Amino acid sequence: MSRKHDSIRPIKWENDQLVLLDQRVLPTEERYLEFNDVKDVAKAITDMVVRGAPAIGVTAAYGVVLAARKHNPEQNKNWRRDIEQDLKILAAARPTAINLRWAIDRMRKTMSTHVSSENPLTVLLDEAKLIHQQDVEANYKLSDLAAELIQENSEVITHCNAGALATGGYGTALGVIRTAYEQDKISLVYADETRPWLQGARLTAWELQKENIPVRLVAEGAAAMLMQQQKLDWVIVGSDRIAANGDVANKIGTYSLAVNAKQHGVKVMVAAPTSTIDMNSKSGDDIPIEFRDESELLTVSGQRIAPDGVSAWNPVFDVTPAALIDAIVTERGIVENPNLKKIKTLMS
Amino acid sequence: MSRKHDSIRPIKWENDQLVLLDQRVLPTEERYLEFNDVKDVAKAITDMVVRGAPAIGVTAAYGVVLAARKHNPEQNKNWRRDIEQDLKILAAARPTAINLRWAIDRMRKTMSTHVSSENPLTVLLDEAKLIHQQDVEANYKLSDLAAELIQENSEVITHCNAGALATGGYGTALGVIRTAYEQDKISLVYADETRPWLQGARLTAWELQKENIPVRLVAEGAAAMLMQQQKLDWVIVGSDRIAANGDVANKIGTYSLAVNAKQHGVKVMVAAPTSTIDMNSKSGDDIPIEFRDESELLTVSGQRIAPDGVSAWNPVFDVTPAALIDAIVTERGIVENPNLKKIKTLMS
Repeated sequence: MSRKHDSIRPIKWENDQLVLLDQRVLPTEERYLEFNDVKDVAKAITDMVVRGAPAIGVTAAYGVVLAARKHNPEQNKNWRRDIEQDLKILAAARPTAINLRWAIDRMRKTMSTHVSSENPLTVLLDEAKLIHQQDVEANYKLSDLAAELIQENSEVITHCNAGALATGGYGTALGVIRTAYEQDKISLVYADETRPWLQGARLTAWELQKENIPVRLVAEGAAAMLMQQQKLDWVIVGSDRIAANGDVANKIGTYSLAVNAKQHGVKVMVAAPTSTIDMNSKSGDDIPIEFRDESELLTVSGQRIAPDGVSAWNPVFDVTPAALIDAIVTERGIVENPNLKKIKTLMS
Repeated sequence: MSRKHDSIRPIKWENDQLVLLDQRVLPTEERYLEFNDVKDVAKAITDMVVRGAPAIGVTAAYGVVLAARKHNPEQNKNWRRDIEQDLKILAAARPTAINLRWAIDRMRKTMSTHVSSENPLTVLLDEAKLIHQQDVEANYKLSDLAAELIQENSEVITHCNAGALATGGYGTALGVIRTAYEQDKISLVYADETRPWLQGARLTAWELQKENIPVRLVAEGAAAMLMQQQKLDWVIVGSDRIAANGDVANKIGTYSLAVNAKQHGVKVMVAAPTSTIDMNSKSGDDIPIEFRDESELLTVSGQRIAPDGVSAWNPVFDVTPAALIDAIVTERGIVENPNLKKIKTLMS
């Protein structure tokens, strides 16, 4: 089924190169960057040329292809060993998104099982393209499932960007919003501007506007008042890693939003493919939380906003306990009021 | 008693002029602007050259002096009537801070009661200076009272700027913090950066750094995680208007912070002079909430951050219900778990 609001693809494989939409310069500029070296891909992930857990996963899969090419599998018998150093660098590019490790592990499995008569690079590229395609399909599926939870004439708020830009395409939270909007169920989307990186203002607003879905920006601090004073039906967010008990790591500010949602009877939905679920993290306590440079808070668009010498505390993810989440929606199904038992069932 | 951390005065009367520290360009520039016309003073309040409820009140008092001077009381018998148009413009400069109306009403009373043999301008200027001085004294008093509530080795978070810059001097929330720090009770102050106007990053960080009080910036969205993961003892904020039942209007984001504080057992203190209490507002529902231009969210320091054509919802104050507040501290005393009866007793 073709989708009405599905015009954005931030990751492409073109002319034997990885091509990424540079998310650092949106919305003022639409610039595509080409990558031929896995180390440059790792740096692009660290520097947030591409961000969003599923998008990082897809990017890393193509990164493994570039790593393999560098080690020349058709002539170098030890390419599988030689590639490991690069894969380590790639896996360490960002700590919180589990999809990064998940995609590399899947590519590693393909490396170890591919039939020796086949061209390894072709096999690996096919696998990376499959990961990419499956990510988009997972978003379609979870969005169809999630839309059933949303009543007509709903107003929703989202945090950060869990859109086409954060995935192989279509998006998780914004995939749900796209589908529900296409079904005339959503009338308005509020976007938290999402400090410090302003993903809401720069990316979500850009993406929804491009799809002609009505969007209004709010400061994070205003979301509670919005819930207090206006009709708001759902908080819909993505995730960077979901623990086995249903605790959800997502962009800093998600936890605050969920606490306020609980206080105001607004429901909380987390939309994510199962590649985001990490059964090795028993709870949120096991999820490594990335802290980024203080300068992200001390400057905006390169301009200094705080006085010289002032320090900042800049965690870029937080953990929302499962108890605050009404539904985790994946391509395999919906988990309401998540807990270990239900997540285990979903994943088995 | 002299205070250790008391170096900032944003409002001065010098050479028969009102002089304001331009808070729009802090912390990159310390620029003072001179005012001779009441209409320019009203515009300076609207444009946030000066902001913070008590500072707006003090500024308005000096504005009334300028208005009176314009209408030449020694030669114009009708000056009290003629001045009213200017006072209306001044009173309408910003809607939420009750101190603005309070100060103008107090100056109007001085206008109507001053002995005719005295020079009205001298009497009015003396009254404005008294309002200014009493505001600073109220801050000293309420800070001494509030410091008694704070245990040793406390870490606190503040929102927006309720400092010397927001008052006649010394500050309300930051007055409490100054005094408690001088008494070795506070070890670290977290400052919410406070979108959209970044009062926390630009003003509070500047002010505390100037006083050598340790300060760390956080994004609003990170405050809940801070409460979840680190020791945090108090939320300490100022107010723009306190209703008779103890509901508190303050900078957007305060309500979210208070909801999260309640969730995490962090106590909430509101520090404000009694000139901030409006017995005519029965509850927060009666407090007019200012909405400001969308551009405050769509741009930062003049640079566009959101795509063209996107709209924003930009309320700049919110109301925290009395039930979420542990203590309102004024120069007349502390009101714990505020309600109508206790506030009435305080004000009588």
